[in-house]
Amino acid sequence: METSVDVGSDERWGATVNIDPLAWYLNTVVMQLAAGGVAQAVVCPGSRSTPLTLALHHHAGIKVHVLVDERSAGFFALGLAKALKQPVAVVVTSGTAAANLLPAVVEASLSHVPLIVLTADRPRELRGVGASQTIDQVELYGSHVKFFKDLPSPEATIEVIRYVRSQVARALQCAGDTRPGPVHLNFPFREPLLPKWSHSGISVQPSPITHPILTVPQRSLADAKEFLGQFSRGIVVVGQETEEIPADLVLSWANRWGWPVFADILANMRHIPGVIGSYDLLLKHHPAPAPEVVIRIGAIPTSKSLNQLIHGLPGLLLEPAPQGLDPNSQDLVLLGGDISESLRALLDPPARYHGDPQWISQWREAHQQVTAALPEVLTQQPPNAEPQLFGNLDQWLSTHQPRPLPVMVSNSMPVRDLDTYLPTGSPHLRFFANRGANGIDGVTSTALGLSSHFGDVLLIIGDLAFYHDMNGLLAALKFGLSALIIVINNHGGGIFSFLPQHEQLAPDVFEAYFGTPLDLDLSHAASLYRAEFRRATSASDLKQYLEDLQQLRGLRILEWIVPSREENRRWHLDTAQRIGEVLSHGHF
Amino acid sequence: METSVDVGSDERWGATVNIDPLAWYLNTVVMQLAAGGVAQAVVCPGSRSTPLTLALHHHAGIKVHVLVDERSAGFFALGLAKALKQPVAVVVTSGTAAANLLPAVVEASLSHVPLIVLTADRPRELRGVGASQTIDQVELYGSHVKFFKDLPSPEATIEVIRYVRSQVARALQCAGDTRPGPVHLNFPFREPLLPKWSHSGISVQPSPITHPILTVPQRSLADAKEFLGQFSRGIVVVGQETEEIPADLVLSWANRWGWPVFADILANMRHIPGVIGSYDLLLKHHPAPAPEVVIRIGAIPTSKSLNQLIHGLPGLLLEPAPQGLDPNSQDLVLLGGDISESLRALLDPPARYHGDPQWISQWREAHQQVTAALPEVLTQQPPNAEPQLFGNLDQWLSTHQPRPLPVMVSNSMPVRDLDTYLPTGSPHLRFFANRGANGIDGVTSTALGLSSHFGDVLLIIGDLAFYHDMNGLLAALKFGLSALIIVINNHGGGIFSFLPQHEQLAPDVFEAYFGTPLDLDLSHAASLYRAEFRRATSASDLKQYLEDLQQLRGLRILEWIVPSREENRRWHLDTAQRIGEVLSHGHF
Repeated sequence: METSVDVGSDERWGATVNIDPLAWYLNTVVMQLAAGGVAQAVVCPGSRSTPLTLALHHHAGIKVHVLVDERSAGFFALGLAKALKQPVAVVVTSGTAAANLLPAVVEASLSHVPLIVLTADRPRELRGVGASQTIDQVELYGSHVKFFKDLPSPEATIEVIRYVRSQVARALQCAGDTRPGPVHLNFPFREPLLPKWSHSGISVQPSPITHPILTVPQRSLADAKEFLGQFSRGIVVVGQETEEIPADLVLSWANRWGWPVFADILANMRHIPGVIGSYDLLLKHHPAPAPEVVIRIGAIPTSKSLNQLIHGLPGLLLEPAPQGLDPNSQDLVLLGGDISESLRALLDPPARYHGDPQWISQWREAHQQVTAALPEVLTQQPPNAEPQLFGNLDQWLSTHQPRPLPVMVSNSMPVRDLDTYLPTGSPHLRFFANRGANGIDGVTSTALGLSSHFGDVLLIIGDLAFYHDMNGLLAALKFGLSALIIVINNHGGGIFSFLPQHEQLAPDVFEAYFGTPLDLDLSHAASLYRAEFRRATSASDLKQYLEDLQQLRGLRILEWIVPSREENRRWHLDTAQRIGEVLSHGHF
Repeated sequence: METSVDVGSDERWGATVNIDPLAWYLNTVVMQLAAGGVAQAVVCPGSRSTPLTLALHHHAGIKVHVLVDERSAGFFALGLAKALKQPVAVVVTSGTAAANLLPAVVEASLSHVPLIVLTADRPRELRGVGASQTIDQVELYGSHVKFFKDLPSPEATIEVIRYVRSQVARALQCAGDTRPGPVHLNFPFREPLLPKWSHSGISVQPSPITHPILTVPQRSLADAKEFLGQFSRGIVVVGQETEEIPADLVLSWANRWGWPVFADILANMRHIPGVIGSYDLLLKHHPAPAPEVVIRIGAIPTSKSLNQLIHGLPGLLLEPAPQGLDPNSQDLVLLGGDISESLRALLDPPARYHGDPQWISQWREAHQQVTAALPEVLTQQPPNAEPQLFGNLDQWLSTHQPRPLPVMVSNSMPVRDLDTYLPTGSPHLRFFANRGANGIDGVTSTALGLSSHFGDVLLIIGDLAFYHDMNGLLAALKFGLSALIIVINNHGGGIFSFLPQHEQLAPDVFEAYFGTPLDLDLSHAASLYRAEFRRATSASDLKQYLEDLQQLRGLRILEWIVPSREENRRWHLDTAQRIGEVLSHGHF
């Protein structure tokens, strides 16, 4: 389908040239993608998507990863984008291929990751007529993408080319703005699907994409300072980082006000002296002094105890763009804009402020007591108690090179346990989790996306989540990625043992609907993906194997058998109680 | 949360009773589901969905299957609903769990399967505030469900109870109407999530659900008969059955008009004498006489050659409800209504009709020649040629008990090969495929859903589709299902070798983006799910192992290694050419 077209009288284009509309169109799309910061793409095989696949392959500046299962591919791209802090494209063919991306799109939406979803579609005249592999892809991801456009089919007119460029640019602009997120472009391709690159036409210049930064008005900052100044006892709650959180600035600011910083394990700042990371244990079984005001930075914290502590309190929320998410019914003042700038403006308390010097010191003392007591408490646990892994993580991974090692923690129990039992964090480990929708899906693929950029990853995951995204392991095999996966195999859904369902239902009903043991020998999954495999049945095994496996590269799976969810529940409660006893001799 | 409520002055309700709003609400929901024909449900573990899970468990008339991966669970429910020809419910918790159902929902929508999707959600006051595992589930499946309702949270008022009953009834009505399809009910539950069945309140009677049948007006039938009467040479094209197609009636009607019946393998009527099932081979490499008019019944046929033959022709489309899907740009007259009734009304041609006695006989003769020649042509193929499996399927499965054996064929190549190489079908085999969106996802789960009802299933699937839904195998293990799975392992996407991509791209580019070999030793997947495993490297192995494995029950995986996609392509072309040579001595 070679067309001789008049591309307009603009002298840059000349008068009449031989152009393959498809090649011209695709060139425009990929040049715009690259100009908008897309340097990596994940492609799933398909026929209708051939033009996009070949266009990405053809562009020297874009690295392409090919995966077969679109659900895993979406999460791999998500992990990659998290690691790169750049937009990553995902290409899928028409039909249910596109539908399989929804879980990753939802997670990207809620965790603010710029996923650029490019779906191939039939041209408009083949939609809704029963054509093969054709579904309604218009607004397929609904409210879960920030931008959707059903693009025109390729045509060699400068209007179409410029329109496509502008829509790709708008999508990238939107994906990477002050609150990033996924966008969706739908490409209707007619046959033939193979572009003739030699007839690409004269390239249109891609639009430059710049992302402005929001600034809080001086007046609002002054008001916020006055608002805070009326309280004596505040706490600063720092959640998962999405943008870089200026940890040192947060700490110096909080110190000036005399307020403790409570940092979620996913904020990756617990290792900084002065940060309180033991609040979950502190608050679990012990009455704590109530703060008067809460300053929140970053995502909502993992700890249920902390969320309960701040429930209903007045607060200030600092975010790069105003959104105001608040599951705790607080009285919130919103400051949407550059966080560092806001912190600097709030650095000195107003004249009217009267701090309470006891306030921060009692939290620090309690934190000191917990962190001092915890190793001993963990040592007293039986060899299969899950908290031991999390409490010793920093120490057991001390020989790992290079550092910092990215550590992906699965939802449900691992992220909670990590948050609880690693109060001092680690400067050598950098924690990641999919805390947007908190799903147990796509966790392995996200971890492998991280590894693809960082060179290695440690993944801590339960058996159900490991099973859910077992297909994700193919990425390790295909791309030769390194990953050390600790599967905590407690034979089913460990978290349910902590819920009222466990106490109120008959054991057989509980096991059938909530425990849901898989009854799979995971060594076979390891063999399928040619992973090094170890099975640990005690914490000392686990420690030993971790030491061995740190020396290796490639895919390594370490299954830790935790035979009893019931006992695990008891160990958790027991740990909290012992910590409570330590504290009962102290300040709180 | 026990509430003493005034449930209205209606004397059936009494004046004041102690009621648990949750139990009352759930009772109403499940009684209505059961009254609407829901006898089986698939449940995925989760906390927020606890009320629905327990309500289904609590109802004696509903059988519950528990699966962990929602994507596979959705397709399992789809297969079950296809087998039962009844609505099947799927329950998932909030968050990405619900998003994972989209692929199955899309397939159900396009293949007209009444999937009743029940998602748990947070109550309205916990949405959009960053609460854990909370995503926007309102219209999550967009245009891919026929009915959506975001229900109220449980309240012990008769208005809420009656409203919920009416919306569940409407959903069931809609799901099972003249063109069935999936529906979505979203349930916002507050804690506590455990119902007190002893305080369920007085049950409200579920609404009876009846599904009316559409009737074509006599006038339209008379017009259709006149329309058909102007042609001499028609063909009747019967696609995949969704509703039962009255095969004998189709045949007697077609015979009176002297028109051949071309039945897709998925119409399950090729074994009936007089049916032409060899049209794909007939049309592939041979000029065929052109029909003047096409009568279409059932879904769009699989064969590309047949679709090309009917492209642009005048036609009549018979369907239970008017929809008019037509990817072939035909001039179509639509008759939406009971097909048997329409056929009976059209039975005798009008007075003006002039048939061509040669027309049907030349097709039958050609069909006879092809079916006579095919076994010999297949025998001459080398031992790994994929067509042999399909051509010999009926014979190789002749000892299987019980009969008919449901056979699920995967999309991409298997369904096409079956359609091409099994022209005479089989009275002992009943074929199924997911031909709505033609995806390669969820095929194994759909097959196991069929097995759950029929007691066994044969699945024919390629290596990519097998990998895509490997998680689906858990259903076989958990529910003790029987399934014999033939994995045609041609190391990647076989279908792409038949497309222009294969000829026009450099081999390394083709392999990287389209061939996409998995490089997995599938015996480990079989071990993981404790399946009987055989690996065949020739057609004679395959035949032998099929004989062995037919005698067994449980999960059996037979991997057939087809070493070369390239050679496979040649064998396909070769077969068609040899058949063409046979015919060149015959009528066409």
